Amino acid sequence: MRPPFEPPLRALMGPGPSDAHPAVLRAMAAPLIGHLDPRFIDAMNEVKAMLQAVLRTKNELTFALSAPASAGMEMCLVNLLEPGDDAVVCVNGVFGGRMSDIVERCGARLSRVDVPWGRPVLPDDLAPVLERVRPKLVAVVHAETSTGVRTPLEPLSELAHAAGALFVVDAVTSVAGIDVRSDDWRIDALYSGSQKCLSAPPGLSPVTFGPAAMEAVRRRATKVQSWFLDVTLLAGYVAGGAGRVYHHTAPVAALLALHEALRLVLAEGLEARFERHRRHHERLREGLEGLGLRYVVEPQYRLPQLNLVWVPEGVNEAAVRRELLDTYGIEIGGGLGEFAGRAWRIGLMGGSCTLGHVDRLLAALHRLLR
Amino acid sequence: MRPPFEPPLRALMGPGPSDAHPAVLRAMAAPLIGHLDPRFIDAMNEVKAMLQAVLRTKNELTFALSAPASAGMEMCLVNLLEPGDDAVVCVNGVFGGRMSDIVERCGARLSRVDVPWGRPVLPDDLAPVLERVRPKLVAVVHAETSTGVRTPLEPLSELAHAAGALFVVDAVTSVAGIDVRSDDWRIDALYSGSQKCLSAPPGLSPVTFGPAAMEAVRRRATKVQSWFLDVTLLAGYVAGGAGRVYHHTAPVAALLALHEALRLVLAEGLEARFERHRRHHERLREGLEGLGLRYVVEPQYRLPQLNLVWVPEGVNEAAVRRELLDTYGIEIGGGLGEFAGRAWRIGLMGGSCTLGHVDRLLAALHRLLR
Repeated sequence: MRPPFEPPLRALMGPGPSDAHPAVLRAMAAPLIGHLDPRFIDAMNEVKAMLQAVLRTKNELTFALSAPASAGMEMCLVNLLEPGDDAVVCVNGVFGGRMSDIVERCGARLSRVDVPWGRPVLPDDLAPVLERVRPKLVAVVHAETSTGVRTPLEPLSELAHAAGALFVVDAVTSVAGIDVRSDDWRIDALYSGSQKCLSAPPGLSPVTFGPAAMEAVRRRATKVQSWFLDVTLLAGYVAGGAGRVYHHTAPVAALLALHEALRLVLAEGLEARFERHRRHHERLREGLEGLGLRYVVEPQYRLPQLNLVWVPEGVNEAAVRRELLDTYGIEIGGGLGEFAGRAWRIGLMGGSCTLGHVDRLLAALHRLLR
Repeated sequence: MRPPFEPPLRALMGPGPSDAHPAVLRAMAAPLIGHLDPRFIDAMNEVKAMLQAVLRTKNELTFALSAPASAGMEMCLVNLLEPGDDAVVCVNGVFGGRMSDIVERCGARLSRVDVPWGRPVLPDDLAPVLERVRPKLVAVVHAETSTGVRTPLEPLSELAHAAGALFVVDAVTSVAGIDVRSDDWRIDALYSGSQKCLSAPPGLSPVTFGPAAMEAVRRRATKVQSWFLDVTLLAGYVAGGAGRVYHHTAPVAALLALHEALRLVLAEGLEARFERHRRHHERLREGLEGLGLRYVVEPQYRLPQLNLVWVPEGVNEAAVRRELLDTYGIEIGGGLGEFAGRAWRIGLMGGSCTLGHVDRLLAALHRLLR
């Protein structure tokens, strides 16, 4: 008989998942209840209200999709796009590339705004494309997990709306780490992930659809190509209040974990949480620079929760990561795309954003890099 | 500040989720590890091996999809169907209907084999349709969760293959409750759910693709319409052994829960587990019939793990279910479709298939129905 799996203890300082609070793990491990149990419906209604607060939106259709953020991304795009629609996707890392792939699978006409990785997408990047095409939507990644770049959303939202387009945002790594103002910034559809700065276990994707997005869905001439992701079918279950009707079996345990994680986020307060991320990021930055490491991204576009630093000359980056994991129990991330083998991604997300994490990593790197 | 959610204690005897073993809940609540951690890759490899054993298959592409069984259903169909393909779907309940919907969203030509709800799909139902169309696939539900009917798969598989079609099976409620022999019965693609007789929390969908199905995927002229469900992209991560490459962030905690649930299934032994389901089903049946309740389904097609019984004349079925839940802490399911308001669905799945559950429900019904 196979023995039980004994997971090692890690400090999760990569691009996610981050360390979940013990209360979140406890919430997840409660004896199961049914997905149509009136008490579980109460919990889902509370998740909705808390997500609205965290995403700063009044959107009725605000919920946690029963799948990872990649499915949340696909959900936003397949509901809003029909074959032949025009879509503009801003690409400055892995996830803009993934959105582009999905846009094409929807049969839509893709216009890419390609920006060098490690740089944000700026209005001057987007504006020329909007002079050529009048897209149904413009999609952009707020916090590129592959590069640690923050793209300021407000000016892009203005451009998109001025062109008559919906504004779709990947906020996977930003939510609960830096400010995301869905309504103020006129975001029409947004998806996030449970396992970054929210510090719930991976597997759920908070999603919100605004009124203009829902109007676009209602006006579709064709059915959404995905049954599982069809927001018109999901709406009756995820946002139906007391009258929720069966759609699929919700991941009860994961949702109760997210409930507790959201509760902790709001108990801390969003502003206090953002300030914590800024403060510990500064401490990490000072320490890393003291070790001679350099940041890839310009200061004003750096994400406090995801730090992309160049691997020093002559250092075997994979060996350092392996040693960090095996000897020190610390996970950090390798680079992706053009940064593969050349940079590290150091996460300070939610529960992993503590002085203890910062100091532990700096001490380990001090030994490994000297 | 909102208080923590306090879930009630339930005996889950509906159509799923079922009661998870405390060891499964504990496994899920272990401190998180990364989805690319070498130790987690070990755990995923073990999940694969155990799923192969439970599904009785040697298929390399055997894994737990990071989403509920509805997404597993969609995964099987979107990978195998292209616009214009012919597909035959057998419909004797809710889930055959759902498959039909997805087939149409794939742009495939749908031929339905409609059978009255509460009856199995028999060779004589399928054969005439296969004389009219030569489909790319035939899809059927092994254990209809909406009706408690078992459809014998072997004769349908023979017919499908004789017609040159792939054989696709919904085994959501059957796996680990009654025998599912993927290889012996020449099933080309199959999906299941974590929360039925496997008694892991809801949210994952065990899936297996056989060689003929993968060959059909390789021969596609068009891209799979879903990025998230594209098996060619997933394969490198879910079945890649040591060389697993990033696709999406796996739901680590849920997968470790499934790991423990599979371990318990194999420790019990499949045959012993099926026998337990048969035995307790018999006890339940005797008890229910003693209370004057009648089964909807013919004896030889009844699922031991899902019992569909008529609501007695003059009984307010919703009130009884509510009273069971509120006073006795027991969840059972209402009827779906034509059985809505007319029948109950009583589950004896995995961890909920114990004498304690049976006797507790019978005692409660004895009081409520007398």
